Amino acid sequence: MYVILVYDIGEKRVAKMLKLCRRYLNWIQNSVFEGEISEVKLKELILSAKKIMKLEEDSLIIFSSRTEKFLDKQIIGKELSSTDNYL
Amino acid sequence: MYVILVYDIGEKRVAKMLKLCRRYLNWIQNSVFEGEISEVKLKELILSAKKIMKLEEDSLIIFSSRTEKFLDKQIIGKELSSTDNYL
Repeated sequence: MYVILVYDIGEKRVAKMLKLCRRYLNWIQNSVFEGEISEVKLKELILSAKKIMKLEEDSLIIFSSRTEKFLDKQIIGKELSSTDNYL
Repeated sequence: MYVILVYDIGEKRVAKMLKLCRRYLNWIQNSVFEGEISEVKLKELILSAKKIMKLEEDSLIIFSSRTEKFLDKQIIGKELSSTDNYL
């Protein structure tokens, strides 16, 4: 399946969350990730994310689609470089 | 069409951008919006967004799908209340 993941998370937890999501998906904007992922791997990711998050403060939204072909993507402005060395 | 819009924008410009996007879409997370929108309205939104943005610093990503039915949404943690009075 194809997913878009966005989080809004407290500053103290952001580095951990970024690192976790990058292990599973492609980082495309500050707190936005996308990519092809299996259901099992997605469950694993969500479970790990929940351990990092403060559920009463932080938020994680995952949009999923059977395949990428149902989705078009348009980027306006600055793009994250794929060779970005952040973290 | 159905869109998901996410922005990463300098603090000084964020209030304007939020106000603009809320005129066209539903606000679901800090910098994430979704909703049904016509192609004409989406072009209008993008044009207005470009006027607010610093294109070399800010980023706006729009995912679009023909209909919402191709997309599932999962929210983990805190949800934005629809009666949120922010701004």
